[in-house]
Amino acid sequence: MVIKLVILGSGGTVPTLSRNLPAMAIQCDGLLFLFDCGEGTQLQLMRARLSMGKLECICISHLHGDHVTGLPGLLMTLGQIPRERPLLICGPPGITEYTEGTRRLLGFQYQYPVEMLETSGGVVYQEGPLRIEAAPAEHSCFTLAYALIEAERPGRFLIEEAERLGIPAGPLYGRLQSGQAVTLPDGRTVQPSAVMGPPRRGRKIVYATDTRPAERVIQFARGADVLIHDGMFDDDLKDQAQMKWHSTVVQAAQVARQAQAGRLLLTHLSSRYYADAPLAEQARQVFPATTVARDLMEIDVPMYK
Amino acid sequence: MVIKLVILGSGGTVPTLSRNLPAMAIQCDGLLFLFDCGEGTQLQLMRARLSMGKLECICISHLHGDHVTGLPGLLMTLGQIPRERPLLICGPPGITEYTEGTRRLLGFQYQYPVEMLETSGGVVYQEGPLRIEAAPAEHSCFTLAYALIEAERPGRFLIEEAERLGIPAGPLYGRLQSGQAVTLPDGRTVQPSAVMGPPRRGRKIVYATDTRPAERVIQFARGADVLIHDGMFDDDLKDQAQMKWHSTVVQAAQVARQAQAGRLLLTHLSSRYYADAPLAEQARQVFPATTVARDLMEIDVPMYK
Repeated sequence: MVIKLVILGSGGTVPTLSRNLPAMAIQCDGLLFLFDCGEGTQLQLMRARLSMGKLECICISHLHGDHVTGLPGLLMTLGQIPRERPLLICGPPGITEYTEGTRRLLGFQYQYPVEMLETSGGVVYQEGPLRIEAAPAEHSCFTLAYALIEAERPGRFLIEEAERLGIPAGPLYGRLQSGQAVTLPDGRTVQPSAVMGPPRRGRKIVYATDTRPAERVIQFARGADVLIHDGMFDDDLKDQAQMKWHSTVVQAAQVARQAQAGRLLLTHLSSRYYADAPLAEQARQVFPATTVARDLMEIDVPMYK
Repeated sequence: MVIKLVILGSGGTVPTLSRNLPAMAIQCDGLLFLFDCGEGTQLQLMRARLSMGKLECICISHLHGDHVTGLPGLLMTLGQIPRERPLLICGPPGITEYTEGTRRLLGFQYQYPVEMLETSGGVVYQEGPLRIEAAPAEHSCFTLAYALIEAERPGRFLIEEAERLGIPAGPLYGRLQSGQAVTLPDGRTVQPSAVMGPPRRGRKIVYATDTRPAERVIQFARGADVLIHDGMFDDDLKDQAQMKWHSTVVQAAQVARQAQAGRLLLTHLSSRYYADAPLAEQARQVFPATTVARDLMEIDVPMYK
């Protein structure tokens, strides 16, 4: 499965010409997952050439305007695209009131089934090998971090081992690969584990903004291949970050290091920053695999082999 | 006074990469007036290098989502800019419920005084030489057209005439120019009309979308220097325009001709059109001074001399 992450909005609070309001998409083969939906997100989806019709689920972190003002417009535009599959919208308590309230104020009807899910944490989506979990972050209002998690895949089929055991090539290979024991013509029984390598890790992508650096986010992000984390301020503005319930880039790097993440993407950058390099440099002192997110940046998250 | 009109969004219903949702700004020296506020308008203001801090008044035509989804985000961003002057928001009945409703759902406070004005028509703004009038258009829901009208200016001072009458140059000239009669040293009284040319016309800009072609819009737009009119469909889609309460480009041209407008700007173009030329050509058969609006297009409206 191809898993590709696309930053749609790397700014926060107010948009700038280079940083849209918060939104991130994850494409998993033919399905699209959206995390937050700041004003202008539908246009950013178009710019990124992501098909809105493939939207499976919209996960909202919290109800501050910069994270949700693009939702009504997106839901209206989706009405122009033929769709029978339900769209899941999940978020913290209050997401239904916001979504329904704006829909009522604007007087539009959905042209497709919508499922609302309010949660304080736990699994919000599960379909085939993919699931999405939510857990509280630490912000001035109740805010959820999200993890998109791919299930472990079976190990590789060890063909040399199968040959060594004298298993005839053909349908028996397939049954072993699908996890069934087989009986050979000579009466021996072979367990799948005898010819399969160890299970292969699934991928994990964690989105955590807006938030202060928090122990519970570290736990939740444990082992993430990519952690997208609030990095609103540079290290000199630690007090401001604390006061405004955000993180500095260095704090985000500490979270990534402690969570043993594969790489860190800093997002929700304050509109005061024009240059990424000084921010990236500060963070890389603590966590080298750090990138400052940019709008329309795409990141392929490769499968474990 | 410099009057400059800037198209911020020339699309309608759904945004495209080349046409944002409806919004138009008129800059009158240091004041900025906004007509409609589709999603993404605050970014379009930035792209057009128009200062949000100078916003004097936001006039909303109607409460369909594509015309108002940018309002909450703009009002939030305005909170980041020091401002003491009140901001006027006017629109059809329901505009207060929408504005206040979304503010409540998003839980933000204005950081500046806001005056709400609900109207079915009439003068909505009057300050110095500028006034804004509203009048009903013809759409599927109650919709207002707006006219920004500059007051007539006094005629020019005819210096040759003043010299011929033997009026000594100096303060007497100023008093005559400001409309006062003066008494000369030799006892004669001179009325201002004796040395002033005829009053000079003020400018008039009319914004009418969404609407079917309508007699009342023609009346309202009478003599407009620039008429910005709904031109959602080409002439082949007359039935669709009728059914959806919009206008074709030819119908818009007929309105402009009958209103004796100076020029016509077609706006709210359907996302199906990529090329402007065929639309402009159709309209110019009826009204030659037609332009198809483009996002960020600027139009200077020159003073009458």
